[in-house]
Amino acid sequence: MKKNKLYNVAVVGVGAVGIEMLRCLKQRHFPVGELRVFARSPRDIEVDGEKYSVKAISPEGFTGIDIALFAGTEGEKGAAVSFAAEAVKRGAVVIDNGADFRMDPEIPLIVPEVNPKDIKLCRKKGIIANPNCSTIQMVVALWPIHKIAKIKRIIVSTYQAASGAGKSAVEQLKKELSALNNKGYEDLKISDAQERVLPQQLAFNVFPHIGGFAEEDYTSEEWKMVKETHKIMHSDKIKISATTARVPVRTGHCEAVYIETKKDISLEQLKDLLKNSASIVLVDSPKDNLYPLPVDAEGKDGVFVGRVRKDPFVKNAFWLWVVSDNLRKGAALNAVEIAELLIAKKIKCLIKVIP
Amino acid sequence: MKKNKLYNVAVVGVGAVGIEMLRCLKQRHFPVGELRVFARSPRDIEVDGEKYSVKAISPEGFTGIDIALFAGTEGEKGAAVSFAAEAVKRGAVVIDNGADFRMDPEIPLIVPEVNPKDIKLCRKKGIIANPNCSTIQMVVALWPIHKIAKIKRIIVSTYQAASGAGKSAVEQLKKELSALNNKGYEDLKISDAQERVLPQQLAFNVFPHIGGFAEEDYTSEEWKMVKETHKIMHSDKIKISATTARVPVRTGHCEAVYIETKKDISLEQLKDLLKNSASIVLVDSPKDNLYPLPVDAEGKDGVFVGRVRKDPFVKNAFWLWVVSDNLRKGAALNAVEIAELLIAKKIKCLIKVIP
Repeated sequence: MKKNKLYNVAVVGVGAVGIEMLRCLKQRHFPVGELRVFARSPRDIEVDGEKYSVKAISPEGFTGIDIALFAGTEGEKGAAVSFAAEAVKRGAVVIDNGADFRMDPEIPLIVPEVNPKDIKLCRKKGIIANPNCSTIQMVVALWPIHKIAKIKRIIVSTYQAASGAGKSAVEQLKKELSALNNKGYEDLKISDAQERVLPQQLAFNVFPHIGGFAEEDYTSEEWKMVKETHKIMHSDKIKISATTARVPVRTGHCEAVYIETKKDISLEQLKDLLKNSASIVLVDSPKDNLYPLPVDAEGKDGVFVGRVRKDPFVKNAFWLWVVSDNLRKGAALNAVEIAELLIAKKIKCLIKVIP
Repeated sequence: MKKNKLYNVAVVGVGAVGIEMLRCLKQRHFPVGELRVFARSPRDIEVDGEKYSVKAISPEGFTGIDIALFAGTEGEKGAAVSFAAEAVKRGAVVIDNGADFRMDPEIPLIVPEVNPKDIKLCRKKGIIANPNCSTIQMVVALWPIHKIAKIKRIIVSTYQAASGAGKSAVEQLKKELSALNNKGYEDLKISDAQERVLPQQLAFNVFPHIGGFAEEDYTSEEWKMVKETHKIMHSDKIKISATTARVPVRTGHCEAVYIETKKDISLEQLKDLLKNSASIVLVDSPKDNLYPLPVDAEGKDGVFVGRVRKDPFVKNAFWLWVVSDNLRKGAALNAVEIAELLIAKKIKCLIKVIP
């Protein structure tokens, strides 16, 4: 019997995404040789009953590592800016969930279901970027349609969960809800902004502000959905415009995605494409009150699609309601799948195989 | 000094909208002569410190009433189906917040800012319909743009509050949140569906299901936004398509509205139109984190608009983030404003003036 090859893996960051990376590696039986967990400060953590000793990050810590998964951070430069080059110098391939490298033309931006071949570009800099959570679930849902019918336009509104902004954003939501619960949900406005990590109160609220404000008053999150989709789908001709909003949900982003295709396609054909695509779970039975929900998606791997309808007034125009766990397919799972792809493609120039 | 004329008013229903109708009548110093409050069963209620004696509804109760405001119900046939004709027979004008009469070509569907002249049609049947909450705030925001630049297309996704489905839906949300709070927000799934009035758990969830499912798998709420907008704006040429979703918010609907205009219009012109329109409050200063929010809109009268942007790829295409209190401008306030319009227009054929 052939002995499986094993790889030394580092996970950098133990926030919401880092924890989920550790979970995915274990659940998927990733062929881990040695596992090292790094963060700014050392500590002991426990994930699903398993103990991990977190070490302080240092350039030397990457010696002997084959694959370094950087959990990244939202809203600030990720650890990868300081340490990715150090890891690569020591022979690792870096898979970075942060936003810092995504638009670098010499760094591939990968969703394994969509553009697996692009991964070869990682030979240039030794870094692979993991896309934004909202982008990943959208392109997974749209790719099978695009391959057949060529999408020419995307208009998308998002309903994004707190955990997309990290553990502390989830804590903010819970604290706000507890405070309001203690007062019997009378006045729902929380005046104390001191403890906020999000730009607004999230309990009993919705705010269209994810990331910072950028060109033409779109947010960075809205631009990510445009530019990352263009890069991943190899088509900057698609007209994409987004409004991204945060909703009081723990985990699971929803997206109301409206598309127009260039080629004729029927509603039934489109549903069949979705049904027959790996990673997509079609949940679309209105008569049974079945459509994707964030509380159902949390902890699951798929991209759930439902409420598939055609625009009654516009030809080849359709709605899709796309829901996925933003920490899994939207972040950690996609990163681990990229690592699996690296192994499957035997990209050996960078990965040293442990005998 | 001329003595003000007074009108005998009936409010039918004391759910979320009925209560808000009583509030609006008082806050706006509506010229009420006698006020009668009706519901299925009699009871005493208190609104903002004022006591109201609720009588059981009966045809005879409308004798002598000039204006009957029916609060309506969501999801079932409203009281107006049984009692509107009785009220009209006795000389009242009925303003119905329910959905039953909205699409009747002999009944006007009124948003005073948009189609005040249509009110004259009420002479036909003595009934005026109050539009759906999501429709009202959208058409108020879009009308000034439509007047100048002709809107040819609307693609809208909504983020609708619990109170749009009534008091019991708000109670469901609070109960779910209290139950989750008691368990420290560990598992967020509520298995007990027994007490649900909404089709799904609302706490920590979003569901794209408002009203019932209808033609082409759109919900009744989604069709309302299409058909009511066509009727109110006198233009069934506008291509409208909607996805409507419920979010864990008490009051205040948000809408991500994407429009295309027929005529050229610049972003600045468009913002100026919004700024100079009564009932619209432009809240659009991204650099100061200012945009409309449901927690800010609750209890207020305006339609709040922000995040106004142009599509970078499509000419004369724009986003607006539209927020309003669904119980006020979305329901009760608009109904009371219709009553004020009746008086201002001196539609005397039906209204008997008390000397």
